Amino acid sequence: MNFSMVFYVLGWLLDFEAMFMLPSVITGIIYHEQAVLSLLASMLACLVPGVFVFFFKPKDKKIYAREGYAITALAWIVLSIFGAIPFVLSGSIPGFIDAVFETASGFTTTGASILTNVEAVPHCILFWRSFTHWVGGMGVIVFMIAFLPLAGGSEMFLMKAESPGPSVSKLVPKVKTTALTLYKLYIWLTIVEIVILLLGHMPLFDTLCITFGTAGTGGFSVLNSGCADYTAFQQIVITIFMIMFGVNFNFYYYVSRKRLKDAMHISEVFVYLGIIAASIAMITVNISSLYSSRGTALKDAAFQVGSIITTTGFATTDFNLWPSFSKALLVTLMFVGACAGSTGGGLKVSRVQILCKSVVKEVYFLTHPHTIRKVTMDGRQVEHTVRRSVLTYLSAYMVVVVFSVLLVSLDNFDLETSFTAVAATLNNIGPGLGKVGPSANFSSLSGLSKIVLTFDMIAGRLELFPVFSLFAPSTWRKS
Amino acid sequence: MNFSMVFYVLGWLLDFEAMFMLPSVITGIIYHEQAVLSLLASMLACLVPGVFVFFFKPKDKKIYAREGYAITALAWIVLSIFGAIPFVLSGSIPGFIDAVFETASGFTTTGASILTNVEAVPHCILFWRSFTHWVGGMGVIVFMIAFLPLAGGSEMFLMKAESPGPSVSKLVPKVKTTALTLYKLYIWLTIVEIVILLLGHMPLFDTLCITFGTAGTGGFSVLNSGCADYTAFQQIVITIFMIMFGVNFNFYYYVSRKRLKDAMHISEVFVYLGIIAASIAMITVNISSLYSSRGTALKDAAFQVGSIITTTGFATTDFNLWPSFSKALLVTLMFVGACAGSTGGGLKVSRVQILCKSVVKEVYFLTHPHTIRKVTMDGRQVEHTVRRSVLTYLSAYMVVVVFSVLLVSLDNFDLETSFTAVAATLNNIGPGLGKVGPSANFSSLSGLSKIVLTFDMIAGRLELFPVFSLFAPSTWRKS
Repeated sequence: MNFSMVFYVLGWLLDFEAMFMLPSVITGIIYHEQAVLSLLASMLACLVPGVFVFFFKPKDKKIYAREGYAITALAWIVLSIFGAIPFVLSGSIPGFIDAVFETASGFTTTGASILTNVEAVPHCILFWRSFTHWVGGMGVIVFMIAFLPLAGGSEMFLMKAESPGPSVSKLVPKVKTTALTLYKLYIWLTIVEIVILLLGHMPLFDTLCITFGTAGTGGFSVLNSGCADYTAFQQIVITIFMIMFGVNFNFYYYVSRKRLKDAMHISEVFVYLGIIAASIAMITVNISSLYSSRGTALKDAAFQVGSIITTTGFATTDFNLWPSFSKALLVTLMFVGACAGSTGGGLKVSRVQILCKSVVKEVYFLTHPHTIRKVTMDGRQVEHTVRRSVLTYLSAYMVVVVFSVLLVSLDNFDLETSFTAVAATLNNIGPGLGKVGPSANFSSLSGLSKIVLTFDMIAGRLELFPVFSLFAPSTWRKS
Repeated sequence: MNFSMVFYVLGWLLDFEAMFMLPSVITGIIYHEQAVLSLLASMLACLVPGVFVFFFKPKDKKIYAREGYAITALAWIVLSIFGAIPFVLSGSIPGFIDAVFETASGFTTTGASILTNVEAVPHCILFWRSFTHWVGGMGVIVFMIAFLPLAGGSEMFLMKAESPGPSVSKLVPKVKTTALTLYKLYIWLTIVEIVILLLGHMPLFDTLCITFGTAGTGGFSVLNSGCADYTAFQQIVITIFMIMFGVNFNFYYYVSRKRLKDAMHISEVFVYLGIIAASIAMITVNISSLYSSRGTALKDAAFQVGSIITTTGFATTDFNLWPSFSKALLVTLMFVGACAGSTGGGLKVSRVQILCKSVVKEVYFLTHPHTIRKVTMDGRQVEHTVRRSVLTYLSAYMVVVVFSVLLVSLDNFDLETSFTAVAATLNNIGPGLGKVGPSANFSSLSGLSKIVLTFDMIAGRLELFPVFSLFAPSTWRKS
């Protein structure tokens, strides 16, 4: 384990975190809020350990897979702890566990909140809260790789550990260029959403915060009513952009390069859109008796489906009151999640595809033991290691779900609440059902449950294995 | 597909089913019940198609994997349909869907019931209901293989398709001898339980029915109160035998041959006992405030844990009223299930072991991509195909869970009810939680839900793939 390199990257990370607080400071100045002082103090808290990177450079900059995993996991923990300081200092969230929960929920783009009255929180703190979504969406480490010469050629290990999906395909030969390309697309889509929402007469502050939440597929809103009070136009725009940010970014890359044939080859995107369309249709029919007009039912169904499958977590209605079938379908979508290589969480559509294809193949193999049949995807054969990795991922996922539900159920809430609290945090969604449903929040849970769910949020965002690697003794051994 | 062989085996199966009804007929004669006529009529219904096997023998007796899977799946469907006739004819369960549900629940050793008043049902029908547990526990096809020269040397494919667990290890070189050995152990353990319960002053009829339920890990009881009214001694005996029937039968085989070293090598058995001990301890602490004495809490915790992990489904108390943690733990045990090669259902302990070891190995592989490390179990390397099969099994399992919950949730019961109804049937347990909890039953569900859950029971008992193979076009193609 190259410890000096671990500290070096974490130091840079804190410098970046201080920088990320700048827009919130500006917001505070504009609104003349006292809470801006807590943000300035937090920047200082980040810079004190962060400044060392300018004086001490590690001699050996080489890192390998295990450093990549460990650094990434540690980075997200450090990020959440230091990012919690503004909440504590400003008094918006006095408890430290609560503040870390909220910050981790921001960076991991979960959007699960312990705040009972969002509207009482100063603008600059709300801005910071939503901005963490935008930063966490595409990945902090991806950001650092894009703008910083970190480690000589071994950034791939960092990028791999942070990027969602079964396998990182380098769009262009250089990792740094890939990271930059992704961020360019991300910024571009963000700007387009901001412009359209402003044209739809949404106030600037709301527009920025909601867009950060949409882009990162986060889900923190700035009104106590969530997104229910926005106009139909604004809600539809948000729906469309949520779904767009759940698309594999390779798709946009190919489209932007006019490589339409390559774009059309990404079957995941079309399966994803198909699942969305089918779910919206089924839920619209299922909830139609609750609505006076089919159109409103369709609009609400589309918003909630788009919000849940992309793991954003905005809500325009309390879907906890919907019929069981719709609720069960939403819980299913929580686990399916968005596309690999998007800002969304969950298992990812491509993983679900590989899992289903593996099942079909296994049935064929068992009934025809002497025939060989390969699992293919997008015209290419899925390698053994990828398939095994995906299958193992599901097992690891279930292990985390089981242990988390057991620990959370010590709070003695009903099973629906315990189970969906875990599902909503591990998949980085936000609201669950029952006592953690869209009209409630996570404040009533115990400290232990909040720690477990914070772990789940980070584990879910990093796709488990980086966080698991922290517990493996072999990670810490000297090389 | 060798169709003549399919019909030949199914014909024999019906002859066996008629024979299995004989003890119930004797019961009916002893109790002077009119319902005995419905049993005799059902025997006739089985023998009419079954008699053909004595006149037509297939020329080509050779069968392969796909015939093995298809025959096994079809056998269990046919068995459940013909076994339902006594319930319908006697008027105990007038509806055909309900009767097939109850019969499938019996043969698959699930024990989920739609009967609201068990004590009103004639003794001979209750005997048939419980006897299906005993027949289904070790497997009908295993029984046929043990006592019938079925197919020249290709019985392995049938045995493989019906036996629970990740891989069938032949205890002795000949499949027929293995099947006979298993049945001898099974009968022997059954007799011991009957004797002990009789010594504990349980009435003979109850003793036989409860023992069939314990041996097959079924769970149908003959009193409306389940097992709550039996004495503490009787309950403890049932607890011990439930746990014993959840042990891998290879263990008993080795013990009976005095090959203790081989027996001690089956790590699954010790993991299984460890999980039981830990679960009993945790639940006892969790529920102790509900009980006046620790001893009673321990006794009830042990009974329920033994009942759920072995997927038996007897109950001495309404665990639906227990705290959430205990309920969540029981739901977890539902999925873990008993040992492979036992009469219990669920994922099986050895599968869970392999899944967990795969996760640990994957973490190691990702952080040390250039080192090779194998997954081992009981000192031997777990082969690639076995591991992949286990991992794929989990995926297939989740797919069935998701679709079943969605369909069952159309009944608009709460999610706890829908989810545990599926968990309790797919894992062949019996009672779930909520509206299908131990003090309630499955009668309030819709016809559609009952059909889905009947499918789940059979799919769970046969470990999915045989039932899946019926839907694969390649199964039906001519060879």
